[in-house]
Amino acid sequence: MQEKLRQHIEKIVPLTDEEFAFVRSHFTVKNAKKKSFLFQTGESVRYSYFVVSGLLTLIYHDDTGKQHIVSFAMEDWWESDYEAYFTQTRAGMSLQCLEDTEVYCLTLENYRKLCAGLQKMEHFFLQKANGGHIGSQRRILSFLTSNAKQRYEQLLQRYPALLQRVSKTLLASYLGVSRETLSRLGHTS
Amino acid sequence: MQEKLRQHIEKIVPLTDEEFAFVRSHFTVKNAKKKSFLFQTGESVRYSYFVVSGLLTLIYHDDTGKQHIVSFAMEDWWESDYEAYFTQTRAGMSLQCLEDTEVYCLTLENYRKLCAGLQKMEHFFLQKANGGHIGSQRRILSFLTSNAKQRYEQLLQRYPALLQRVSKTLLASYLGVSRETLSRLGHTS
Repeated sequence: MQEKLRQHIEKIVPLTDEEFAFVRSHFTVKNAKKKSFLFQTGESVRYSYFVVSGLLTLIYHDDTGKQHIVSFAMEDWWESDYEAYFTQTRAGMSLQCLEDTEVYCLTLENYRKLCAGLQKMEHFFLQKANGGHIGSQRRILSFLTSNAKQRYEQLLQRYPALLQRVSKTLLASYLGVSRETLSRLGHTS
Repeated sequence: MQEKLRQHIEKIVPLTDEEFAFVRSHFTVKNAKKKSFLFQTGESVRYSYFVVSGLLTLIYHDDTGKQHIVSFAMEDWWESDYEAYFTQTRAGMSLQCLEDTEVYCLTLENYRKLCAGLQKMEHFFLQKANGGHIGSQRRILSFLTSNAKQRYEQLLQRYPALLQRVSKTLLASYLGVSRETLSRLGHTS
């Protein structure tokens, strides 16, 4: 699984073996079972997670106890409650495994050490942050301009594999529609 | 106005006079009149903009010609169509001045040169990108979990100054509600 992390980083910056050993030494590995939580609302958020295999979902519970799916993260994606992670405050959301999941874990302290110790890694994280920002802008735009059917079709087009792995209930929550509305949109699997 | 850019950067990384001169040399300055566009949909996006004074808004026009306000940017904020900027594709949105506006302009080439030439600046942009990502996540969450009234109140609480400077029509578009709905929410100015 080390190779997956290295390949992922080398899509953006090439690393020597020594450099990768330095990078690798800043991560710990965790294997988490389906349905378990990496953190829950109110807990401290110690890590940013790189998904080696499996599937995570970031969940927000509103005041009425209703669950909202903020995002999904599958192989090669990074996920955390980044506000809580970067500001070292308590989690406003929960991060749950939808499948047995293997992750690389990076503390904020080690994130900073990596950036300071190897400019290539600061460059790597800047590219990922810019990419994440673009993705979020796209999603904001889809809320402003698209109805549920269009949002469903955009998701289908962009991440067809994801739709095979996620329940209808979670998918409806991610799209911000009811389970019944989703069924009418043609998600019949 | 140089001081504003320097102060803004030095909130995150301290700079020597030489370093700031290096940074400054990568920017150009532009003064744009109220209602003018820094770029429009379909044009190339040459710059990321740092607002020294004034107010910008990023606008998306949907297929029916309807206008959606994606974001506002006032003093000390950065704005652009970042997908178009970073991928060097045509603008999917337009960036308009809501007031006479003074901006520092940074090409992607100079952004890269700054990052490569001075690690402090790569660090600075990483902090800004992470902050932008957190802000976008917050807005996504507000679309998923809050109704128009709540979104209006969140905006009022977070950016009270902005609401004094933006028309009701634009504000309604930003919140994703009709002008009539906004009036019912108590925006009577």
